[in-house]
Amino acid sequence: MPPIITAFESSPDRGRGQARDMRVRWALEEVGQPYGVRLVSFSEMKEPGHRALHPFGQIPTYEEGDLALFETGAIVLHVAERHAGLLPDAAHARARAIAWMFAALNTVEPPIVEREMAFYLERDRIWHRERMPILEQRIRVRLEELSTRLGDGPWLDGAFSAGDLLMVTVLRRLAGSPVLEAYPNLVAYVARGEARPAFERAFAAQLAVFTASSGL
Amino acid sequence: MPPIITAFESSPDRGRGQARDMRVRWALEEVGQPYGVRLVSFSEMKEPGHRALHPFGQIPTYEEGDLALFETGAIVLHVAERHAGLLPDAAHARARAIAWMFAALNTVEPPIVEREMAFYLERDRIWHRERMPILEQRIRVRLEELSTRLGDGPWLDGAFSAGDLLMVTVLRRLAGSPVLEAYPNLVAYVARGEARPAFERAFAAQLAVFTASSGL
Repeated sequence: MPPIITAFESSPDRGRGQARDMRVRWALEEVGQPYGVRLVSFSEMKEPGHRALHPFGQIPTYEEGDLALFETGAIVLHVAERHAGLLPDAAHARARAIAWMFAALNTVEPPIVEREMAFYLERDRIWHRERMPILEQRIRVRLEELSTRLGDGPWLDGAFSAGDLLMVTVLRRLAGSPVLEAYPNLVAYVARGEARPAFERAFAAQLAVFTASSGL
Repeated sequence: MPPIITAFESSPDRGRGQARDMRVRWALEEVGQPYGVRLVSFSEMKEPGHRALHPFGQIPTYEEGDLALFETGAIVLHVAERHAGLLPDAAHARARAIAWMFAALNTVEPPIVEREMAFYLERDRIWHRERMPILEQRIRVRLEELSTRLGDGPWLDGAFSAGDLLMVTVLRRLAGSPVLEAYPNLVAYVARGEARPAFERAFAAQLAVFTASSGL
């Protein structure tokens, strides 16, 4: 039985691959692991049935036999540990790739999420316009550091890894934004990730869900 | 040679164990691994020498022979993978403990950090007072969910794990706050973590650095 992941029945990103199931789909495609998808609505996500799988009522979840996992980073790491293709074999390189996974989710993504949260929660407040430069400056600090470390390299540390997979999906949240476009090597890095056949298959799969749900 | 971690030469939390080296110290104490500490100043952290170890110019870092790691979550996981005491032996329970590590850092901690960031970056702005309830409500949503999942259990999933270690340190950022105190089972959970001998040793070690640096 292939693992089953959950995804939005109707993704708020309209199929742009910004929902976190994209990260798990991409990881599974990279390692060639078939998977099933169970779609959940926003109201179902908050009900006890789904919360038994995901205490915070979110997607994706991952079910494989008796195992139920939540948290995208943990799911991607689980996939990467069990299949070749997402983590180096050498112990030190493997530990560094995992450090980039945490860096993507815990250092680079939070200020990016904050800018989105400000839009969702505070865009009608009088202070919203004045706060945006503060929020963008916090993102810029991280992108500057990331850009410096990446330099001219294709990936963050040697071969493509689960660290790059998560970092590319984090940076994609800024797609088209001048904040990202100020760093051409990061733009090229994202494009390099998006050009991978596994990314393309994962992207097409999540887009197909949105297309079907919207009746397009 | 024991591993060497970095910590603040003069911690802004005045020895309350809120800096992230506390998490690594606690993990190393839980598994009985001796370690050395190299103290760095705020200006040193942003210089190329330190950035070679930590691209984002932060603490802690972890050096062990040829291996250099950054990101607290990755360091704690590295320690947990190499020594008994922080991850269950059974594969499924191990994967779930890792899910709680990511949940602590990626789901529960970000809104808590935001409240702190608002204080540091925006407390002089006219909107600060009006934003606080928005920020606290975001924290409350996560604590409510966490409290429900924890229930009457001592730890999040069976025995104490690296997931609990990180979650307790994340919740400690709210120590003394009414936001946390509304959830007695979470307060008791934090106290249970703080009562562990390994926590106490780690806490004393980081406090000794502050005491020495401040000439107290």
